[in-house]
Amino acid sequence: MQCPIYTLANQSYNTILYKENTPGGTKVNIKGFKFAGIRAGIKSKNLKDLALVVADTPAAAAALFTRNRVKAAPVLLGQKVMENSRLQAVLVNSGNANCFTGEQGMSDARQCTDLTARELGIDPDLVLVSSTGMIGAPLPMDKFESGIPKACTRLSQDGLKDFSRAIMTTDTFEKTVHKTCIIPGPQGDVEIAMIGVAKGSGMIRPDMATMLAYVFTDAQISPDLLKQALTRANEKSFNRITVDGDTSTNDTVVCMASGASGAVIAKDKGQAQFQTLLDEVCLALARHIVKDGEGATKLVSIEVRGAATRKDAFKAAEAIAHSNLVKTAVYGQDPNWGRIAAAVGRSGAMVDQDKMDLRFGAIPLVVQGRWQGQHAEKEAAAYMKGDEIQMVLDLNLKDFSDQFLFCDFSENYVKINADYRS
Amino acid sequence: MQCPIYTLANQSYNTILYKENTPGGTKVNIKGFKFAGIRAGIKSKNLKDLALVVADTPAAAAALFTRNRVKAAPVLLGQKVMENSRLQAVLVNSGNANCFTGEQGMSDARQCTDLTARELGIDPDLVLVSSTGMIGAPLPMDKFESGIPKACTRLSQDGLKDFSRAIMTTDTFEKTVHKTCIIPGPQGDVEIAMIGVAKGSGMIRPDMATMLAYVFTDAQISPDLLKQALTRANEKSFNRITVDGDTSTNDTVVCMASGASGAVIAKDKGQAQFQTLLDEVCLALARHIVKDGEGATKLVSIEVRGAATRKDAFKAAEAIAHSNLVKTAVYGQDPNWGRIAAAVGRSGAMVDQDKMDLRFGAIPLVVQGRWQGQHAEKEAAAYMKGDEIQMVLDLNLKDFSDQFLFCDFSENYVKINADYRS
Repeated sequence: MQCPIYTLANQSYNTILYKENTPGGTKVNIKGFKFAGIRAGIKSKNLKDLALVVADTPAAAAALFTRNRVKAAPVLLGQKVMENSRLQAVLVNSGNANCFTGEQGMSDARQCTDLTARELGIDPDLVLVSSTGMIGAPLPMDKFESGIPKACTRLSQDGLKDFSRAIMTTDTFEKTVHKTCIIPGPQGDVEIAMIGVAKGSGMIRPDMATMLAYVFTDAQISPDLLKQALTRANEKSFNRITVDGDTSTNDTVVCMASGASGAVIAKDKGQAQFQTLLDEVCLALARHIVKDGEGATKLVSIEVRGAATRKDAFKAAEAIAHSNLVKTAVYGQDPNWGRIAAAVGRSGAMVDQDKMDLRFGAIPLVVQGRWQGQHAEKEAAAYMKGDEIQMVLDLNLKDFSDQFLFCDFSENYVKINADYRS
Repeated sequence: MQCPIYTLANQSYNTILYKENTPGGTKVNIKGFKFAGIRAGIKSKNLKDLALVVADTPAAAAALFTRNRVKAAPVLLGQKVMENSRLQAVLVNSGNANCFTGEQGMSDARQCTDLTARELGIDPDLVLVSSTGMIGAPLPMDKFESGIPKACTRLSQDGLKDFSRAIMTTDTFEKTVHKTCIIPGPQGDVEIAMIGVAKGSGMIRPDMATMLAYVFTDAQISPDLLKQALTRANEKSFNRITVDGDTSTNDTVVCMASGASGAVIAKDKGQAQFQTLLDEVCLALARHIVKDGEGATKLVSIEVRGAATRKDAFKAAEAIAHSNLVKTAVYGQDPNWGRIAAAVGRSGAMVDQDKMDLRFGAIPLVVQGRWQGQHAEKEAAAYMKGDEIQMVLDLNLKDFSDQFLFCDFSENYVKINADYRS
């Protein structure tokens, strides 16, 4: 099936082959990295809850953290660690977010770092820790004291599947993406590979959706170029998705480049290919996250075109993607264009209602502000029975556009999130 | 029962006696106004759908309209009519919002105005029309041609109940408030009365929640002072409530002052009392609207104190009131303070997480950023079984505060709004 969502650079999004090429990490590995995922006993259920990735040598690294002003201890510590732009290990625990834990939380995060560094015989400045799960409770440090050495003994080139399972909270499926591309070099073409792993928005027992994403590549690239590429990729992927409009205190996106492929990315040398690869991996992970949104039954893209400014395009797309009325209508397979018009109207974006065009897939619902009648609406309702819905709103003012991915809003979302935590 | 929500000026909010003193309009009337509410046949169900209020003589009037950039025809026309600051009649129809109806919509709204003016023998510039209901379809003008004369024949001092029923869409109860106060005057004390009628957010078949509110008083007041008072009252009431964060294309708040009581409000002469009265009436109507929010089972107030700026206080309170995670937790009777902390963190307001205090009712959940433990959480869970929940978040930074009223978020909200319109 042709995937209608997003076109990136010269490649259409479906070339990512995120379905075919996402084997849950069983056989996928990437040069220069080893992975582990074990049960340390942090979660109450019998599930893996401690993940570790280690690069053979210190790797160029870039990271982006939540913009929430309430930040968990590992995020605050992570911001400091990333000042060096190099990482050799990332330790991730699920089951406890180490947030709202005060001084104790900071000291616990530091201890996790030190335990990992000591066990691996590396500098603590090369270790990043991430946490996701319940907030307000201190980390069970005894579980880390026994768990970290155990994880270190399990490190393996083939450990990606364990890693991806151990970072999950209430995700209903593992989110891994593997993709390669060819970089032309002076000694001929070289292949570089990239693996992305993420956890998304599921939070029955934890208090918030934490989005964690880790991307590993065997390309060689400077930390500066890597940070620039990650920032750009993030802007087009993780910053353009919404499940329920809430931002976690723990959100973290990390990219590490081992350089083990021998392929060197430099300014204007393979840079565009690398960016496209990273864009696609991040977008595929973002897409997985939305698809696994709590209670979600449909994946929706809204593209706003013809906005008067870039900011207007963003605001209009964001308002539609966040609208509970739009999301419930999608769940009800109702092509309720009035709700979309109302959302864009309140977004603050410049609007001339007599100029708006709106289509669902290829079906025009509104043309130049005029409803296209019952027949169009029926066609659109039939289209909405599908799992993936594409909405295109053209404001027909100027040339600015933006896109968001979001999911619908079902009774299940309410059930999941109203469930008392005890 | 002591109502914990809001304290206004010198009076606590519960002195409005909105329960005791809200007889659905059966016997309440107000000097200088006549009301009617009839079935014109605009709605498909056998319900009243055309409401009319007429003042004995042209009344000072003020109105506020939706900030949505997509505005329904009656709103666009209403903005023009209100340039004169005088009204004698307001015609409201439910069942059709006359929105996204282009030139036809404007011409239909004008025709409704003309029909009403002709029938009443008054100037069309003194007539305001409001519409709420389905969007995108033209007004059924034949129903108005027969309905308007019929409504005019039914005008009565005791017609408030009919009026309030005829403006409802899927509201589950009528929203009327009646309140009086005493104004000291040169010839002794004079009583002034105020009646408020509103419809709120219910929208199974219509596409959006339209909030319409009409306030009538027998005080005599200049249009300028009235506009100033209404703007202030609106800011503290209708602009501080949220059901689902979507803003309608048709929202309208109107206040008309007949002067029939003989009591004159002027600058510093009864002005404070008038403001308090209007504040209380608007707040009571706003409260009714939230209480009747789609699928709502609980009424919640969030008060943010100690914010660094006025805008921060607003942003923090708004973010919490809009958070789906907070709203579902309230529905689940779960004192999930982490979601509140996360919402304020993403609001953009200045926050020091080690300074925050949070209480539900009188129960402190977080003090100086520290969770108060299982016992406090259990107490708070018990408190949340009530119908009305008060949350107070003190950021302990500076002195700015703000408040929002909101409702919880249940499966029923999703059911109501996912329901296909056909």
